[in-house]
Amino acid sequence: MRRGNLIVLSGPSGVGKDTLLSRLIERVPGVVKCLTATTRAPREGEQHGVDYLFLSPEQFAAWISQGKFLEHAHYNEQYYGTPLHLVEEARARGLDVILKIEVQGGLQVRQRVPEAILIFVQPPSLEVLRQRLTARGTDSPEQIASRLHIAEQEMRAIPHYDYLVTNDTIEEAVDLLRAILLAERARIRKEG
Amino acid sequence: MRRGNLIVLSGPSGVGKDTLLSRLIERVPGVVKCLTATTRAPREGEQHGVDYLFLSPEQFAAWISQGKFLEHAHYNEQYYGTPLHLVEEARARGLDVILKIEVQGGLQVRQRVPEAILIFVQPPSLEVLRQRLTARGTDSPEQIASRLHIAEQEMRAIPHYDYLVTNDTIEEAVDLLRAILLAERARIRKEG
Repeated sequence: MRRGNLIVLSGPSGVGKDTLLSRLIERVPGVVKCLTATTRAPREGEQHGVDYLFLSPEQFAAWISQGKFLEHAHYNEQYYGTPLHLVEEARARGLDVILKIEVQGGLQVRQRVPEAILIFVQPPSLEVLRQRLTARGTDSPEQIASRLHIAEQEMRAIPHYDYLVTNDTIEEAVDLLRAILLAERARIRKEG
Repeated sequence: MRRGNLIVLSGPSGVGKDTLLSRLIERVPGVVKCLTATTRAPREGEQHGVDYLFLSPEQFAAWISQGKFLEHAHYNEQYYGTPLHLVEEARARGLDVILKIEVQGGLQVRQRVPEAILIFVQPPSLEVLRQRLTARGTDSPEQIASRLHIAEQEMRAIPHYDYLVTNDTIEEAVDLLRAILLAERARIRKEG
């Protein structure tokens, strides 16, 4: 059986990664998310083993030292990491695995898995991103300012990514993400 | 303006390249074919400057010596070539240019234009190809046998191509070709 691809989806907070990812998985057979482990507290309705693996800081540190993460990152005062064994199990079953991770994690994945496919989702503009974060209503003005600052920094990593998708309308962005996944499945891998 | 991509579409005679290409151009805005120059005689209904540039062997040889071809090939006792200036004009206008050319021409394009995107269209099997060539009714049994032999040789070049598309149903193959074109437009070009 053909091994599935490993796909990284990054982009600023508020750009719409969660919505795009849900729609994409509905639309393209053979694509799965990988659970992320995190030290942050569950938000209302979030479940361990469904939304995230919620680990204590001590557990997280132990997993790092045991090499159990494909990548891990410190972000917004919390740790996030991708358990390697979950990724490998899914790929071995022929499934494409998508990781929704921050830029620093994306670049770690590139180093450990050179054939990983890195997709950056950008907003049409930072002003549109500011409007979306405001409309979401979950962040204070200070948090929004901080997210916009982080967004600008993250966008500097775009040249290290493979694909750039602008999330102007959800439908077009999902269609383009689908196209990237299908195209990559048809790609002929070069040896060496 | 973003420069258009250069795309090579190759595959055995009878695999359905012409149909796929017509459907693809209907479906994806901003994609054009490039006229091919050839020394072969026009088939019924084919027009100079519309279907091909029909050149005499003397004219063709002159164009070669003047470096006017992006690639040229000798195939089925005739010459075929892609005029460089037509490709460059279209790409400069932001159009993706698709060349329907044989494998030997495709590999020449790769050498001269390293960023070219090479797509190989294969039949579901050689037996299916034999059936399609027979159904087309334009070739003698000897010609069909010759085309199948050439097809086998051409398929050895697949590892040099970037994408492999199996033409099982036209709709699925066109959808995949469209996906490849859209994905490549979203690809972030690496410098160097």
